[in-house]
Formats: sequence, structure tokens, C-alpha cells
Amino acid sequence: MTTSSAPLRVALVGHAFMGRAHAHAWRTAPRFFDLPRDPELAVVVGRDAARAATAAHELGAAESSADWREVIARDDIDIVDVCAPGDVHAEVAIAALAAGKHVLCEKPLARTVAEAERMAEAARTAPAGTRAMCGFSYRRTPALAYARQLIADGRLGAIRHVRAQYLQDWLTDPEAPLTWRLDKDVAGSGTLGDIGAHSIDTAQWLLGDDIAAVSAQLRTFVAERPILSEQRGLGGRAAADAERGPVTVDDAVAFTASFAGGALGVFEATRFALGRRNANRIEINGDRGSIAFDFERMNELEFYDASDDDGAQGFRRIQVTEPVHPYAARWWPTGHGLGYEHLFTHQAADLVAAIASGVDPSPTFEEALRVQRVLDAVERSAGASSILTPVNGAA
Amino acid sequence: MTTSSAPLRVALVGHAFMGRAHAHAWRTAPRFFDLPRDPELAVVVGRDAARAATAAHELGAAESSADWREVIARDDIDIVDVCAPGDVHAEVAIAALAAGKHVLCEKPLARTVAEAERMAEAARTAPAGTRAMCGFSYRRTPALAYARQLIADGRLGAIRHVRAQYLQDWLTDPEAPLTWRLDKDVAGSGTLGDIGAHSIDTAQWLLGDDIAAVSAQLRTFVAERPILSEQRGLGGRAAADAERGPVTVDDAVAFTASFAGGALGVFEATRFALGRRNANRIEINGDRGSIAFDFERMNELEFYDASDDDGAQGFRRIQVTEPVHPYAARWWPTGHGLGYEHLFTHQAADLVAAIASGVDPSPTFEEALRVQRVLDAVERSAGASSILTPVNGAA
Amino acid sequence: MTTSSAPLRVALVGHAFMGRAHAHAWRTAPRFFDLPRDPELAVVVGRDAARAATAAHELGAAESSADWREVIARDDIDIVDVCAPGDVHAEVAIAALAAGKHVLCEKPLARTVAEAERMAEAARTAPAGTRAMCGFSYRRTPALAYARQLIADGRLGAIRHVRAQYLQDWLTDPEAPLTWRLDKDVAGSGTLGDIGAHSIDTAQWLLGDDIAAVSAQLRTFVAERPILSEQRGLGGRAAADAERGPVTVDDAVAFTASFAGGALGVFEATRFALGRRNANRIEINGDRGSIAFDFERMNELEFYDASDDDGAQGFRRIQVTEPVHPYAARWWPTGHGLGYEHLFTHQAADLVAAIASGVDPSPTFEEALRVQRVLDAVERSAGASSILTPVNGAA
Amino acid sequence: MTTSSAPLRVALVGHAFMGRAHAHAWRTAPRFFDLPRDPELAVVVGRDAARAATAAHELGAAESSADWREVIARDDIDIVDVCAPGDVHAEVAIAALAAGKHVLCEKPLARTVAEAERMAEAARTAPAGTRAMCGFSYRRTPALAYARQLIADGRLGAIRHVRAQYLQDWLTDPEAPLTWRLDKDVAGSGTLGDIGAHSIDTAQWLLGDDIAAVSAQLRTFVAERPILSEQRGLGGRAAADAERGPVTVDDAVAFTASFAGGALGVFEATRFALGRRNANRIEINGDRGSIAFDFERMNELEFYDASDDDGAQGFRRIQVTEPVHPYAARWWPTGHGLGYEHLFTHQAADLVAAIASGVDPSPTFEEALRVQRVLDAVERSAGASSILTPVNGAA
Repeated sequence: MTTSSAPLRVALVGHAFMGRAHAHAWRTAPRFFDLPRDPELAVVVGRDAARAATAAHELGAAESSADWREVIARDDIDIVDVCAPGDVHAEVAIAALAAGKHVLCEKPLARTVAEAERMAEAARTAPAGTRAMCGFSYRRTPALAYARQLIADGRLGAIRHVRAQYLQDWLTDPEAPLTWRLDKDVAGSGTLGDIGAHSIDTAQWLLGDDIAAVSAQLRTFVAERPILSEQRGLGGRAAADAERGPVTVDDAVAFTASFAGGALGVFEATRFALGRRNANRIEINGDRGSIAFDFERMNELEFYDASDDDGAQGFRRIQVTEPVHPYAARWWPTGHGLGYEHLFTHQAADLVAAIASGVDPSPTFEEALRVQRVLDAVERSAGASSILTPVNGAA
Repeated sequence: MTTSSAPLRVALVGHAFMGRAHAHAWRTAPRFFDLPRDPELAVVVGRDAARAATAAHELGAAESSADWREVIARDDIDIVDVCAPGDVHAEVAIAALAAGKHVLCEKPLARTVAEAERMAEAARTAPAGTRAMCGFSYRRTPALAYARQLIADGRLGAIRHVRAQYLQDWLTDPEAPLTWRLDKDVAGSGTLGDIGAHSIDTAQWLLGDDIAAVSAQLRTFVAERPILSEQRGLGGRAAADAERGPVTVDDAVAFTASFAGGALGVFEATRFALGRRNANRIEINGDRGSIAFDFERMNELEFYDASDDDGAQGFRRIQVTEPVHPYAARWWPTGHGLGYEHLFTHQAADLVAAIASGVDPSPTFEEALRVQRVLDAVERSAGASSILTPVNGAA
Repeated sequence: MTTSSAPLRVALVGHAFMGRAHAHAWRTAPRFFDLPRDPELAVVVGRDAARAATAAHELGAAESSADWREVIARDDIDIVDVCAPGDVHAEVAIAALAAGKHVLCEKPLARTVAEAERMAEAARTAPAGTRAMCGFSYRRTPALAYARQLIADGRLGAIRHVRAQYLQDWLTDPEAPLTWRLDKDVAGSGTLGDIGAHSIDTAQWLLGDDIAAVSAQLRTFVAERPILSEQRGLGGRAAADAERGPVTVDDAVAFTASFAGGALGVFEATRFALGRRNANRIEINGDRGSIAFDFERMNELEFYDASDDDGAQGFRRIQVTEPVHPYAARWWPTGHGLGYEHLFTHQAADLVAAIASGVDPSPTFEEALRVQRVLDAVERSAGASSILTPVNGAA
Repeated sequence: MTTSSAPLRVALVGHAFMGRAHAHAWRTAPRFFDLPRDPELAVVVGRDAARAATAAHELGAAESSADWREVIARDDIDIVDVCAPGDVHAEVAIAALAAGKHVLCEKPLARTVAEAERMAEAARTAPAGTRAMCGFSYRRTPALAYARQLIADGRLGAIRHVRAQYLQDWLTDPEAPLTWRLDKDVAGSGTLGDIGAHSIDTAQWLLGDDIAAVSAQLRTFVAERPILSEQRGLGGRAAADAERGPVTVDDAVAFTASFAGGALGVFEATRFALGRRNANRIEINGDRGSIAFDFERMNELEFYDASDDDGAQGFRRIQVTEPVHPYAARWWPTGHGLGYEHLFTHQAADLVAAIASGVDPSPTFEEALRVQRVLDAVERSAGASSILTPVNGAA
């Protein structure tokens, strides 16, 4: 809080898991980052007025509202932060941008490429100086931001392999309830868009290279689930005698990918990897070095440098908590790690800095659209009968 | 922020590394914990008025002061949070307790047993309902709090071994400057009191058993260091031609310990373990199970259960992020880890809860005094010539 | 060496890396396993008579030969052990089986499905009691053999995911020479058949389920390499001014797989994963448990059991060196691990036991043929233009 | 087997766990190492003639004997390999040396310093060219031998810390039987001499520096155990109604140590570390680098190099299986690890090479005596009442 400029006032649309993480970020960023303007959580918006009011109280906002259109129309709101489910993204973001509000929109940007294109178009045609950012928050993990520096500096050389896995297990139990994330109309896709999209964005961003083609399989292991009576975290609780409804999205996805630059990618995302709670992993092999990361150990990066002397080569376990590492100098002494919510604090700080300095934040809606195109290609591929070669076919 | 009761107003004495962590905790605790009263950082106190004012602004306090006595005398202060160097602990804490303020005092409680005894006495004789807590923050690591449950539940059986290491490396460089932590008059002791004290407290708390006797060695590897011109985090910077002053504390300590209950302890603390940034480790072996922990992977606990079926026994890597784990349900979904500062947020929440419910917080000054007695025994042991048996003496 | 029965006399065809491992196995198996008949390395066969003679001396065989047909025709040979490159497998194995010799043939069984079918046919039509085994040696890793027991016992429940990676890095350097393993005429395929075949066999064997369909990409990153002047281990050395020849096989392969039973598989094999020396990894997730294995830590198996009590769930690091584990009781006390060559010793012991007890060894040529069919499907898939869906195609 | 020189004929005294490992080594060493003379296991010696005969058959020796004196007197024996319990070491080794036989004696060299001094004296006064070696086999772990090179090359700089743990768990169960290893008259000491001795030797050998003084505690957690009816591996089996006898040695030991060169050592050895099967660990911190090793992952060495560039520093996980690593070139391709018994094969090869080249092997009896002096100092220290400082004594 190092400036007397007027604060950037934020309207938070949605107040569940993601909203809570964003609220913490808006509150915390100005305490640890030297920002040109301080963000301030002003209004919490939700469908239900009473619940929105409670959330505003809990999250430390002065006001609440059940009408996002009214909030967007206000003059005293600078940033609209869209944390609601996917079916709301396009409408809110497009309206907010048209009204000259900066927008931070959760990922995946949209449910379809068409929606995402309209959103990217809205970002391009918004009043001058209006910024749009998509919340691929893992870009703000210090270990991954540092990995990106290593790659950009050529420390990995020519990239040969990308292997990315995002493994969770919270749907393994067939009695886990039917939340909105399992409804295609609301979420757009399932595991693919929710966590697979993170892997795709991380990979494209780390490499500075896009996926050109894919070959994919999707799976829905459990076709019906009990209908939810109470949301809780990622899951929630269904009544014992709850009716069942259909799961209309994928439980798991696996695909191989060709990057434009020639690297071979292997991607997998699932909520059925029993024992893996939030294993967002990526390994990249170049001809000069490699990196490996697992979010379950988010403060560590493994780095292999082929130029180390013979015999002394090996993956280094770097604790990405040094002052020279991205974001780390703002926090604690070396070796004192960060947690999940720091990603959002970094994201908030980066967006404020971008707004103040008049540059586009990372990732833009345009970049998020490029992820959306990969999601779409994965779904098209998985739907094509020609994609699988039978083992016992004609030799 | 779930209550309309009057907030508990906090005066923060000291605003360096620890003060910053505490300020974050007071701000964050009420947003994630359902507290009977909300804490509120009211005043930041520092020796230098201008710097205290800047700190108050940065940390989000309305006021600042350079006179802790005046602050303690105010009626609108409920909690005095002592984050200043060790030579200030006793005076401030004793005065605050006498004035009926709740006190949170950083560790180690004091520089000497005599000081600690006076502080414990002050806590005992303070006005009814006044609470005193010592900041052994690692007790608030979910993994360690869960380990304590396992031990208390008998899952480890009779405890045979405690091996605790607290390994840092920031003094390895002989040019690292002479901060207050290396001055016996201010800090009381060096590595022993700063980080060794954490290991001692953690071990005694986990076991519910005290160390009865020790045999210790202390080492100061670098006798003189450049005098500091600018403090920065744990270290700081000295001018290139800085004069040198004597290091008057230990750089490293190692001791064996006998617990009252029969367990054999091995403790080591150092700032010269090159490559170990903040490896606060403890392993405990019982006759039914074992646990192992390393703060560099603070969200994990290793647990070995000898009752697992033959062939399938092995240390389990538990991600201590489940709703059933201590503190974890207040935060993020399973697998989304916490960071260093969460320890302080948990500590703040626990203190507020203790104050509101009229019970002593953990650890009390009395418990912290018991740690101080061990520190003292370690120093006495290391100073005794009889402690070492020469290898080439008479057989 | 616990019996007076006549030994089983072995002719070893090929004496490079694999031949050396097999020779050690024939020598060692009877010292650690209680075998009904003792194997004995009798003859080493190689193309070059002088080098075969040297090898026989080094490997401890009494005789050598440059004529495998003559050796197969001898009455005093019981087992023909085919360790020569892939272009020799079919001819030698078929002739040996026809002559009533038991055959152990290195993997992959053949260069093509057609060859493999002829070999399986030869095994079926060999004189009664003649046994044929393919050298998928990783089946003899105690950790994997134990994993198979866990799966067979239902400890993993219904299998959802198989993710197998076999990562090496010895071809990363474009100056690595052109060995026979990079020549399609000799080797059949590259990384796919050499190490990918291990992953396929391991997965099918662990699950007791076959891959039904695949979608694959192959890559050859380095098109030409210096022609080898001296073989050494897996690599060798080329003269500084060596001519270059074409690499005619794949450097890397990635494919997704559908198992007949519904599991989703992801497979990757490469010799370009810099820093991964021999990372033969597999993870399997069921709805009751998971296992994970990495040959770089071959004495360990990670096992997750969802029936562990809430809060205490986590992957167990099992040291597969207990007396109850497969093979382990024959070796050293618990915690004293085995090495790579033990796989071959176990294989030799298992083959001898199968011969003596008149049952088929594992894997039979028929099982190896099933692996060959997957290799073939992978190559067909990778060659099909329809397999890849472009990201920027029509939405 | 690359020479026509006469083989070195070995008499193996003792044929239990260690004898079996040594027999394998004598058989295997000449197949993988290019030795000037080939060793050959000629005679197996045991107290019981019938059991010795069976062992000779199993281990592949042509002869057996129950009379070690008669065997030592033979002209056709070159090496006497003492694998019997500790109470036999001195008598057999001294007699064999006097007879001009090379001796390999298991560790710890003796039960007391006095015995060890007589053995070292016997080695000094043996006929010219007679070599004596003590079986501190862990020196032959490639990872540790490589660590020694790094230290000798100055890669760690000035050594500050040594922390060595040798953790096993096979005595945790109070029903584990009373083997000879728990009898002071036979074994000399318990955990201290059996496994603690390895840590002491490893540390002194790695540093090239000796322990000057110690401060120690010993523990016997279980005072009586059922008397053994059948030996098996390290343990064995007692009858259900077995009588109990006293454990006369230590179950666990912990000591701090001062090295002559100034390093601070912490040592711990136990058979009560539940879940740790054979965790022979050592970490060494210097002012330029660190190494860490755990025998449970014997093919890996962790190495931290402070000269790595800022931000990219971290412990490297080196797979010590490269051709440039000690011993590794004789075995398998990079990444294909070795097992426990390879230590003995390396030891056998090194002893043969030393004999042939007329130099002393490592470690000599003199070096082993230096370990014995430390064991003695540890026992003297642990027996001294003055060693422990009570926590609640006078301040």
C-alpha cells in the first residue's frame, strides 16, 4: 500500500471456491507487492441475494448484489472478476468489456471456440486501455515461471518432449455427487476443460509454441451420479436417497500432441487417479536440459543440465524460494514455501501492474482462445471413429 | 468475520520478518476461520518512529508508535504481539501482562532461564483471563498437528527414537553479515535458540514428554563477520569494506537427549548445512509406527504403520490437506497445499479462540520455559570439559 | 545346487550386453534358487569365431562356436538362449524348437507380426515338452511381480488408468552412433520395440488384460548418425570423421490405448528424455487402489490403498525386499536391494522350474505375439494420416 | 577370466549370511573385472562338518572342512576369508597371517581394541607380501566411492558437518529372538559394532579425517529375548515357549563427534527405527558443497554444488551408474542399477588387485583398528556418568 492513487475497485462475480481464492488475492496482493494502485474488493455478486450478502461479509467486501448488469453499469467499479461457472463467462465478460471494465475471467475461457472467439473479439474492441486476462493461475507458480525463464534462456535447448499430467481422484467414488462441473451445458467439458486446460496452457506458455494437432481419447467411467443437495468445495453432499442424473462430460482425457516446433506431447487429465490429489505435473526434455514439476510439491523444480560435468549430472531439486526466483522476493526467507493461494495473489498483482502500465496482461483472451482451440480439437478427435487403430485389425 | 462482537485490537511490537508474518496472520485469520471475535491490527510499534509509520502503512495498521509503554497503557489494545529481538521480550511481555493485555511472544521466549521464569511468573500472576502464548509456530503445521494426533492415539506405540534436525545454510558464506541474531546480548543464543528451540518444542509437544538430560556440542565456525549496514530478511548486506565484529553465539549445535519416558533423542541445528534452506525435520519411531516430516515439504507427512499387512508395509506419503486434517478444512480442496505463513494464521486463530473461550493457548509461557531449560542444559553441557571422551584416551 | 540330476546345458546365441546378462544368470540362478536341475552355460555362439571364443572364456563357457545350426543339432544342448539382434530371432528359435530344444528368446520376439506368428506356431508344434519363453525380463522385478499379486487379489479394484513411460536419453546427442538398434532391417523397430515393448508387456501382464486399440505417433528426431566403428554397451564409438547413415527406426513413440476391459492407457517410450537414464515407469489406478513403479528405484513399489483410514491415506513406499515378496527370500535380508541383473537370474530360475515341472513358462511366445500385435498396431496407427486432428481445422 | 596365472584359492570361514555374500563375490568378480589372477572358492569351513559340507555344495566349493587350523596349514590356500562371528576373528586372522595367507576379515575387526591391536600387529609382522583387509564393504558402493572422489577433489570445500544414521528395525518386536549378534561375548557390541561401525568407517574414509572425541548414549530397549532355536538370515525363529535370555549388547547408539579437522559429527545407529529396513545414510556439508546418501537408494547420490548459478542451485540426484563412476563401467548400461551383493564383488576384485600389484588393500587392519578405537570411546563415553547434563539441574 505504497501510493495515494485511487484504488482499483473490484466486483467479484461468483463466491464459491474460486471466488474465495480471488478475494484473498485482492486483499493480500497490495500488502506484499509494491503496486502502483491498490485493488479493493468492493462488491460480491451472486445469483442469490442473501448468499451473496453473507459471502460479502465473509470475504470482506462492503457491498453485495444479485444483479451483475447493475454492477457493471456502475462508475465506481474498475475490474470485473468472473469466478462463476462457465456458462456465465461470455455474457458477463463481454458486457463488462463493452462497459470499459477490466476483466479477469476464470478458465477455461469459454465453453466453445465460438464463445471464446466472441470474448477475444470483445477484448480487442473494448474501449482503449481496457484489459482482459484469463485466470490460468498456474502460470504464477514461481517454479513454473522460473522454468519458463530457463527455457527462454535456451537452457533446455531444442525441445523434444512435453509430458503433462493433471491427476486428481475426487470422482473415483461413484457416489460422488453430480456438481455443475459434470454438466456439459454449464461447464462446457469436464476434466478436459477444468484441469486439462491448465496443462495445455502451461505447456504452450512454457514452450512459447502451440500445439498443432492432437489425437485424443475421452472417457466417462461413471455415467450417472446422485444429484447434489449441498455444494461443498469441489464436491459436496447428496442425500442418501438422492435421484441420479447423467454425467454429460468426460471423467478423463488422454491425447498425444504435435507442437508446431516439432516437440512430441503427451497429455493426460483425470479425476480418477486414486491417490493423486492435485498432481499437476509437467516434464519437458530438450537436447540441452530438462525440467520436471509436480504441483503436489509446488515449491520445487527439478532441473537437469546436460552441461554439468560427466558423472555429476542429475536432476537438481531446486527450492524455488530464492530472491532471484519469480515472485519469491516478495515473501519469506529462502526455504519457506508458498501455498496454493499465492498463485492468485501473484495473478492479482500482475493484472494491476499491467493495467497501470498500459500493457496487456498474460494470458490475454487471445491466448486463452488458443487453448480453447486445442480443447475443441481434442473433442473432435475423440469423437472421430477413425482415430483408433484396432490391435487385431488387418496387418 | 462472523460476529458483531468488538474486535480484539492488536499492537504489534516489531515489524521485520516476523512482524510481517504476524500482520498477515491477523488480517487473514478472520477470513478463513470462524472466530468468536475478530482480531484487528491496530498499532505497529518500532524503535524508530518514521520506520514504524512506514511499516504501519505497509502492514495495514491505522496507527504507529515508537513508545511501547504508551501503547500498553492504552485501553483500546487487547493483545500485545512481541515480534522484536530477544532482548526486548521479557520487558515488554511482563509489562503487558501486568497491564492485563494478552501476549503473544515470539520464540525463544527469553535469553535465559531466569528471564523465562520471570515471564512465566508474570503470566501466572496477570489479571484473571489474561492469556500468554509463545510463538512456536511449527505446532500449527497441519502435518505436525496431525502427527501429534497419531501419537496421542497410540498409533506409534511406545516411543523409542526422536531424531530432529533443523538445517539451514545462510551462514555458510563467511561474508554473510553480523546481524542481531549473531549477538548473544540480543539473541541469547544463536542457532540453538533460533531454530534448535523449534525442534525441542516440537519434540516435547509431539511426545507429550520432556527431555530429562542432554549431552551437547556447540560450534562457531566463523568467528568474525562484517558489520551490517542494511538489514534484509534473515541476512542483509554489509559494505565491501565493512569492519568485522565477533560472532558471540553458536553457528551449530548437536546433542543427544534422554526423554523422561525413555526415548533416545538426537538433535542437530545448524546454519551451515549447505543446500538445506529450511529443513526442519523430525522423525519419531515407536514400536507400532513411525512418522517423518521435513518442512521443506510441509504439506506431507510420512507415516509407517506396522499393523499394515506383511508385504504392504511402507512409509505412506500423506498429503495433509484433507478436510479431516487439522486446520485444512478452512482452506482449499484436498491436494492444494499451504505455505509458511499459514502457521501464523493458524496461531492467530488459535490464540483468539483460546482468549474467547477462556482457556490457555498452546504453548503457554510455562511450556516455553521448559524449552528454555533445555536450551540452558545444552549450553551448560557444551561448556563442560568432561562431556567429550577422547578416542585415543586410555582404553 | 541341490540335485544330482543332469544339468540343463545352455547354448547362448549372442554375447553382447544381453548375452553377458544371461550368462551371469545361468551361473547364478542355481546358487540362490533351489532348482530341480541346474543350468550350465555350455556353448557361446557368435558370428565371428574368434570373438565367440573370447566371449566363451570371459563368460565361463567351456566351448564356443560360430555355427548355430551345428550347435542346435547337438544332443548335449537342452536350452537355446537367443540374445542376438532381432533379425536372427525367428530363424534360430524356430530351428531350435523344431530340434526339441527349449528356447529363451530375447524381446521383442520378432520384427513383424508375421515372424512372431511363425515363432508362436513353432512353439505350438515343437516336440512335446519343449518350452518357449520370451525374455520380457521386467516381469521378474520383485516390485512388479508383487504389484501383479496386488492387482490379482483385487487390491486395486476395477482398473481405470494405465500410464507407462519408458524414458532413456542416450540418443539425445546427435553424434551418438548408428548401432544395429537404429536399423529397421535388423531391429524391426526402434524405441518402440526395444523398450516400448517392455511397457506394453508389463501393462498387459499386470492387468491380465489386453490392449484393444491404439492411437499413436512416432518420431525420429535425428535422421542421420555417424556409422559405428566400435560397439560398446548400448552405444559405442564412431570415428571423428565417420560417414553418416540413415536412422530407419523411431526415436520416440507415444500412444493412447484402450484396454479390452475399459481402462485408458497412455504409453510413451523415448531415448531423448534427457536426464532419464532408464526410467521404466508404470502407474495403475483402480477404484480401490493404485500402484506406481520406476525402475530407477527398482526395489521400491508405491501402493495406495483407499481402504486406509481417512487422513492416513497416502502412497506407501514399499521396499520390495521382504521374505514374503516374490523372489526376495532367496537373496539378502530385508532392505538390501537387488540390481538389474537379478531379473535375468529370476528368469533363468523360472524357466528351469517350468521345464522341470512340465508347464509353460511366462511369457510364452503366444503372449509375446500379443505384444507384437500391439507394436504393429502402433506402427499402423502412426502411419495413418487420419490419426491427427489439426487444432486449427474446422470447428 | 582373462589370465592363465594360477588362481587365488580361497578358504571361506563361516557360511551364513555373510559367507553366502562372499561366495557369490568370489564367483562373480572374475566374470566382470579384468583381474590379474582369478579367485576361486576352494574350501568352506564351518564348526559343524555336515553343515559345512552342505554349504560347500550350495556355494559351489569343491571341499569343506570343520577344522580351520588344518585348512590354514594347507599350501594350496592363498586367501582366508573370515565371515564367522566376531569371537573368531582374532584367532583365525592372526593364525592365517602368520601362515602367510592373505586375510579378508569381516567387520567390526574385533570385539575390543586390544584384540584389534593384536590383529593389526599380526598384519604388520606377517610374511612380506601378505595382505590383510577388513570388510567394510560399503566403501565399495559406487555412490560412496564417487562421493569420496568429490570430497578429495575439493568439491565440498572445508567440511563442517557429518550426519550419519544407520537405521534398521528388525529388533523392534520384543519377540525377535536372541541371536549371536545380541551376545556381547560373541559380537563384542550390538548395533554399535554391527552397523554403527560402518557409519564410522564410512565417515572417516570419506573425509580422510578421524574422529577425535565423542559423547555417546547407548540403549537396550528390550532386556530379554526368546532363545533362538533356528537361525535364519539376520533373525531366525524361536519356539513359542522358548526360554528367554539376556540381551547383553546395545540396541541403539547415538553420539556426537569431533573430527580432528574440526567437523561436527552426529551419529546414530539402531535396530528400532520402525519402517527403516537398511537406511545406511550419510550427509556431509562443506562450505562449497554437500553430499547425501541413503543405502535404501544405493544407486543414487545427492550432490549440491554451491558454484551452480544462483537460482539453479539444488541437490542433484545423480544415478551413479555412468561409465565414469567407480566400478560402474564393469556392469550394465547407465541407469541399470546394482544391488547389495555388488559391494562384495567389488571388494573381492579390489583385494585381488591389491594382492597382485603388491599394495595394501583398503581398509587395512590398521584403518579398521582406528574404527575400533572409536567404538571403544563410544562405549567408555556412554558408561561415564558425567556425560549427561540434567535439564533441571542448577542453572
